[in-house]
Amino acid sequence: MVPPELDEGIPLKKVKEFSLEELLGMAVKAEIGARKFYESLASRVDIPALKEKIEWLAGEEEKHEVLLRRMYSTMFPDKEIVFPSEHVGPELKPVARELQGVQDVIELIRWAMRAEEIAAEFYEEIEGMVGEEDRKRLMRYLSDMEKGHYYTLRAEYELLLDWEMYSQMMHVGP
Amino acid sequence: MVPPELDEGIPLKKVKEFSLEELLGMAVKAEIGARKFYESLASRVDIPALKEKIEWLAGEEEKHEVLLRRMYSTMFPDKEIVFPSEHVGPELKPVARELQGVQDVIELIRWAMRAEEIAAEFYEEIEGMVGEEDRKRLMRYLSDMEKGHYYTLRAEYELLLDWEMYSQMMHVGP
Repeated sequence: MVPPELDEGIPLKKVKEFSLEELLGMAVKAEIGARKFYESLASRVDIPALKEKIEWLAGEEEKHEVLLRRMYSTMFPDKEIVFPSEHVGPELKPVARELQGVQDVIELIRWAMRAEEIAAEFYEEIEGMVGEEDRKRLMRYLSDMEKGHYYTLRAEYELLLDWEMYSQMMHVGP
Repeated sequence: MVPPELDEGIPLKKVKEFSLEELLGMAVKAEIGARKFYESLASRVDIPALKEKIEWLAGEEEKHEVLLRRMYSTMFPDKEIVFPSEHVGPELKPVARELQGVQDVIELIRWAMRAEEIAAEFYEEIEGMVGEEDRKRLMRYLSDMEKGHYYTLRAEYELLLDWEMYSQMMHVGP
């Protein structure tokens, strides 16, 4: 079941129906959504090692937002970013509820993995749409970074599934 | 040409010739080598965004060393870690020379990518050798983390190849 923190969005194959300007707007919005999701998740997680990793992810998404805004302003100077109401792939939203134990955290990490995976594909799609080599390069950068996030999350996810092991290895608790 | 910071080591397929105890020793040594490599590289890089990322990698490798030592001491209590003289796959060593411009940095990142890629495979091999599910899980954790590093490095590598783009996007220089 999809949690309230995830809005599924339209399928990746619809990407071709949007202009590059709209896609960049979506990308900026998605990075903001991801950052807020990670910030709010971090504030509700009290496992230090995990909290730190999630805060790191939040910081990374913030940097991506800055990069995308720079790319937008070079491509569309003096224009305000257009944020389409639709979005391709899942959009993460802030965690506004109390989490009930580690199971909720595991579930949210699983959804974040899904969102990162699709974000990586989304940037690859945009890479195919831009003509200039430098812009393609920037899209590959973002795509690879999201793949990096995916594996970082997958690592934590796997270990969290064995809570005894996780707490022993990460020295959680007294 | 292999730089002085990389010692190629023996091929991955030789992994079966070592005991688990020896492989864990190799893994600890590899994590220490990687940390020192990243620390020394970070100290010689003056691009703030890149320096920060490399310092982050150094910190991650240090955490892996701690995890591996914990696993070792649960599996072989009261024993000193054995560090075999051989090592499977490339071992990174500290950067002891002055780097001549961005080309040297790019080259070292490319080697680090290779080392991270093989490290991920190395942990997968160990995963296949340990019987207990919790130990397999820890090896998957480490393998996924190294894959995450690989993509993080690949992202930087790609963008660094276009220095003009990199400095514009990362706001390097005046």
